[in-house]
Amino acid sequence: MMLAELRTPCLVLDRRRLAANLARMAAVAARHRVALRPHMKTAKSIDVARMALEGQAGGITVSTLAEARYFAGHGIGDMIYAVGVTPQKLDEVAGLNAGGAAIKLITDDPATASAIAAHPAGLQALVEVDCGEHRGGVTADDPRLLEVAARLGAALAGVLTHGGQSYAGRHPTELAGIAELEREAVVEAAERLRAAGHSVPIVSMGSSPTAVHAERLDGITELRAGVYMFGDLFQSEILTHGQNDIAVTALASVIGLRHRDYRFLIDAGGLALSKDRSTEGCTTDYGYGLVLARDGAARFGRSIVVSAYQEHGVVGCDKGLPFPMIHVGDRVRVAPNHVCMTAAAHDRYYVVDGSEDVVGEWERVNYW
Amino acid sequence: MMLAELRTPCLVLDRRRLAANLARMAAVAARHRVALRPHMKTAKSIDVARMALEGQAGGITVSTLAEARYFAGHGIGDMIYAVGVTPQKLDEVAGLNAGGAAIKLITDDPATASAIAAHPAGLQALVEVDCGEHRGGVTADDPRLLEVAARLGAALAGVLTHGGQSYAGRHPTELAGIAELEREAVVEAAERLRAAGHSVPIVSMGSSPTAVHAERLDGITELRAGVYMFGDLFQSEILTHGQNDIAVTALASVIGLRHRDYRFLIDAGGLALSKDRSTEGCTTDYGYGLVLARDGAARFGRSIVVSAYQEHGVVGCDKGLPFPMIHVGDRVRVAPNHVCMTAAAHDRYYVVDGSEDVVGEWERVNYW
Repeated sequence: MMLAELRTPCLVLDRRRLAANLARMAAVAARHRVALRPHMKTAKSIDVARMALEGQAGGITVSTLAEARYFAGHGIGDMIYAVGVTPQKLDEVAGLNAGGAAIKLITDDPATASAIAAHPAGLQALVEVDCGEHRGGVTADDPRLLEVAARLGAALAGVLTHGGQSYAGRHPTELAGIAELEREAVVEAAERLRAAGHSVPIVSMGSSPTAVHAERLDGITELRAGVYMFGDLFQSEILTHGQNDIAVTALASVIGLRHRDYRFLIDAGGLALSKDRSTEGCTTDYGYGLVLARDGAARFGRSIVVSAYQEHGVVGCDKGLPFPMIHVGDRVRVAPNHVCMTAAAHDRYYVVDGSEDVVGEWERVNYW
Repeated sequence: MMLAELRTPCLVLDRRRLAANLARMAAVAARHRVALRPHMKTAKSIDVARMALEGQAGGITVSTLAEARYFAGHGIGDMIYAVGVTPQKLDEVAGLNAGGAAIKLITDDPATASAIAAHPAGLQALVEVDCGEHRGGVTADDPRLLEVAARLGAALAGVLTHGGQSYAGRHPTELAGIAELEREAVVEAAERLRAAGHSVPIVSMGSSPTAVHAERLDGITELRAGVYMFGDLFQSEILTHGQNDIAVTALASVIGLRHRDYRFLIDAGGLALSKDRSTEGCTTDYGYGLVLARDGAARFGRSIVVSAYQEHGVVGCDKGLPFPMIHVGDRVRVAPNHVCMTAAAHDRYYVVDGSEDVVGEWERVNYW
């Protein structure tokens, strides 16, 4: 099958670019001598997970219990469920662990820590540490760090942080600084807990931008990152990778031409691309995505999706180029702003190997 | 089953509010003596379609061929696929029609019109008319209107327009004005085609806001609307309905508390709520959604989701109220900005009848 024969809109995954992105992050982890625990929230695919785990210790990170069920069912049991758990979710995790998985939880909540420790299944959890984003977690100097750890008791498996503020960073030096804040916060938390007599085997940090830009990772045992596998326009704007490393695009059909307005319509709108606008604050604002030719080449210059209705994307053509030689029914590809959001709109990837031949169809695990 | 027992995040559909919303729009259509052709792009559910069709002529509108396949498979054959078709999609439509459906297409493209007319299956299409939004369609005075109709020939089934600019409207008088532009444009197009000798049985217009606010619909044969079934914060801001008419909310669990910042975290983020920000330009900006109590009551005042990460929603609490008496694991509900986008993130509705008892589970048809 060829790309031109697929129903649109759909997702195209370039396996060669994926492999190169995986190799690059594996080299980062190897250089720092830390384990890489790929975050599967972006790809949500067993085929991608298997590639991402080649040469790694074997553990992954997940963001939903649906991912946990799916990956456990495919034989990947070593997981951190890296979203604050609730007492109500513990039985499901215990059930998966009883079936052979080894899912570790995270919490920053004393009452939840007690519920984890009291669960008969012998659950394990990491304390979530806030390294400056102030989304979740306790800061390393917060007395609650010791309280949560004490309540976990034998259930304590380590500490974990995520420097999500890296998404507000723009320059490599700034991102290196955020990576260092991330490292310092979680290592300091680990040291405080060790000083209080706890064993802290896992010291986990990460995000794709901080992983790539970190200068040192002393004291860290593992790095979590996910979006690096596919890449997107936002990550290329903050130099996590190059624009030509983006491995996932949305394939769309041209459904209308408006020569007079220098615009055309495609059948990928807000549902197929997501409404994510994360390049809005970047040097280049790509609207709802950058339009490429069917073979993935940047043949349309800075033609971008300027509006996204439910099923319509309005492409504003690059005014520096002649109106593209296209017809209704022609296919184009759209590089996403934020690939985690765009990929989640689709139930599968159509896999290519650099050409327009579809060499595979890989499922995703969506929902919860 | 009770709401408190559901896995979160998930969608809750209040059937009583849905029924009231359907009755209100049915009354609008009856008052204007036009047929109502419910747009199923919002609900994407056969159960909702059956309720929406009670007392109506029987036709629906769809936005994807996945919806067309699904509804045809459930015995609803009379459909307008209201997104510009491509020549490549005609065979699939012809196949569904051969199986008993009667799907009508839309186009504004001369080459596509020729392809429709030349298709051996005897397809039917409406010419898409631009009433001022300038997304798709030809204006009523554009020579291309006659060209597309002439190319369709016997395949011409009517004219159709959508006043999508109503989404930029804010006041009832403004919306009534846009409804009148919509009516005038599509009726003028029908008259021009009739003057040129064409038969134009269908003259179709609509959107929920213009349907509700239209003062007259002379010359219109049918009204299309979809979001009215569920309602959302944006539609309540532009007075399509009241805030207490919103029938679909996302159920979420509290996953973290930050008393000091007057915030808490929920497990509904950008994937469960969508990244839609359509109330950004309204009198009240609801962020990524308004937080309600588990029973649907507005007990948290103006507590809204201020940030939406992939699986984390950050709730900024109403500063005029004490910090809510909540714990990790408690459930809340989030009223959506744009219900078409939020609902599309989920594969089913958990149906309630005004209480917290789950009385049904209704599937959705997502993807393409």
